[in-house]
Amino acid sequence: MPEIIEDIAQFTCPPPLGVRDKIVLGHGSGGRLSAELLRDVFLPLFSNPVLDRLDDQAVLEIGGSRLAFTTDSFVVKPLFFPGGDIGSLAVHGTVNDLAMGGAVPLFLSAGFILEEGFPMEELRRIATSMAKAAAAAGVAVVTGDTKVVERGKGDGLYVNTTGIGLVRDGARLSASQARPGDRVILSGPIGDHGIAILATREGLEFETEILSDSAPLHQLVEAMLGVSTAIRCLRDPTRGGLSSALNEIAVQSSVSIQIDETRIPVHDQVKGACELLGLDPLYVANEGKLVAIVAPEVAGEIVAAMRRHEFGREAVVIGSVGEKRAGLVTMKTAFGSTRIVDLLAGDQLPRIC
Amino acid sequence: MPEIIEDIAQFTCPPPLGVRDKIVLGHGSGGRLSAELLRDVFLPLFSNPVLDRLDDQAVLEIGGSRLAFTTDSFVVKPLFFPGGDIGSLAVHGTVNDLAMGGAVPLFLSAGFILEEGFPMEELRRIATSMAKAAAAAGVAVVTGDTKVVERGKGDGLYVNTTGIGLVRDGARLSASQARPGDRVILSGPIGDHGIAILATREGLEFETEILSDSAPLHQLVEAMLGVSTAIRCLRDPTRGGLSSALNEIAVQSSVSIQIDETRIPVHDQVKGACELLGLDPLYVANEGKLVAIVAPEVAGEIVAAMRRHEFGREAVVIGSVGEKRAGLVTMKTAFGSTRIVDLLAGDQLPRIC
Repeated sequence: MPEIIEDIAQFTCPPPLGVRDKIVLGHGSGGRLSAELLRDVFLPLFSNPVLDRLDDQAVLEIGGSRLAFTTDSFVVKPLFFPGGDIGSLAVHGTVNDLAMGGAVPLFLSAGFILEEGFPMEELRRIATSMAKAAAAAGVAVVTGDTKVVERGKGDGLYVNTTGIGLVRDGARLSASQARPGDRVILSGPIGDHGIAILATREGLEFETEILSDSAPLHQLVEAMLGVSTAIRCLRDPTRGGLSSALNEIAVQSSVSIQIDETRIPVHDQVKGACELLGLDPLYVANEGKLVAIVAPEVAGEIVAAMRRHEFGREAVVIGSVGEKRAGLVTMKTAFGSTRIVDLLAGDQLPRIC
Repeated sequence: MPEIIEDIAQFTCPPPLGVRDKIVLGHGSGGRLSAELLRDVFLPLFSNPVLDRLDDQAVLEIGGSRLAFTTDSFVVKPLFFPGGDIGSLAVHGTVNDLAMGGAVPLFLSAGFILEEGFPMEELRRIATSMAKAAAAAGVAVVTGDTKVVERGKGDGLYVNTTGIGLVRDGARLSASQARPGDRVILSGPIGDHGIAILATREGLEFETEILSDSAPLHQLVEAMLGVSTAIRCLRDPTRGGLSSALNEIAVQSSVSIQIDETRIPVHDQVKGACELLGLDPLYVANEGKLVAIVAPEVAGEIVAAMRRHEFGREAVVIGSVGEKRAGLVTMKTAFGSTRIVDLLAGDQLPRIC
């Protein structure tokens, strides 16, 4: 295997992108360009021990409590899509980022940027959807802000949700904690959200409608942590898909990760759409899935617990953590060969969340 | 006085605006339309005891600590203006909303929405300015997010900052706590920020440049609370200006407030610009001023403490809280008459913060 990878690496590593003087869509992809923007612009300026961990949420010690704190702006297009809308998505996205830190989500803020002329009725629908999603997830929206920009200067509605949660006792989750021998668990089929958005946007029609998987995952996480706290890391593979989540973990933990293509569940409809459109499901966004790195001795029990939960019915071990080639993610393909699973180089699908 | 007000009221109260089916710029003004949007759309859906207090920050009890939590999206145009830019403004705005809750600002999140094609150099300047402002205010940016929208779908750069602070022991500040007899203190001259933005946007030239007053106020608040905790309420009169801040307090506390025009400091340049442009300084935004409602017996001492501080040198008592006509703000004019100071009906200056 190592020899093959050496060869492949020369052909699949994208060339250095050089200094970019303008923002491109790929800077919002959650892939390589997003990582560059973070590394070259934001991290040097804002560096501090909490931010530098590069987890999806900051964990803060305040008054003896460990709080998780996370922010997300949502610019998804279209605002309404099969399986959800920007309102429910904004709640699920932030609830999930808190949950991935092992926190019980408690409070949300909501910051709206509205375009002049935006229909009040749509705002009402979106706010209603947010309120329902928040109530279902047991979080309260406790503070908010609304700004309006002139017609033509926005794109309907953008919303930022920022969340606070209380990290559970015993949970110490971080992308830097994967260890050789650990197992990689995926909670279910990938690619539904991205393909649902794309299908709506492009007016694609499939035999049965593909629904976004947008869902709150904090109770699934609670069930998992109830089994064992030997969970090293949780990530929700949103923008940039499963590949980005695994690459970030591999880099942060200085390990390699091997996954097995035949074990990764993908709905047939999504598989078909990806083939048709030339997309790789590994890079397509999910909004109701998680990937977990867990100690090998508890993997079976955790998968079993996940399968008892609504949002983990198809949970499965898809691979393991290896020692060599730190920061490298590889996949054994259905044909038996091995390929590198790199960070997304450009932007496969903009405006996905 | 009461008779005169009765008469004036008939002429100055704007007519009911009716049901609006589209967002207009005034919905982001911080005035009457913003209040309507909150009352008609957001509050009924998200109602909870913390949100319903309508303070500029939520105060949350978590693990024995009282945390302040606040969010603000910034869409100011232009991004760079005399005295600051959107980066420093985004830090000051959120630091100040925490400070107005009597909290020591601790942590910020930063959520960027960038337009494709936005110059990397400007992003770097803005992020640098944010980082400097955060360091100066003693807060750490601990989590962030970046989204990119297609060219023509955004307006360069929008940023959301959400903040967490620790409320000081003994501080119990809320817009609902003003009591008859309390004094109204203003920390300095009003209108600088709004006029600085407008002058830049419209290419107006004055003898000397008008600078935004954008500044972090948490240390001024610390000095004030060091004198006495008999401070009922603090507000920073940003969007909607001093009039909106006072109206919100009057309504929330079910009191009337009387101010004296001759006591309200306004820089000559700002006064001149307002006359020229037909603007009322009471409705122009500030980003480095606060209004305090304090017990009468401590007002003198608090003003003295404020004047010793960089951002409170021109602090002054501008009025007092009265019992009758709950929710009404009136001003004794320079000519000796009394007029109602109402909420801003439309939008005097959009995209000010």
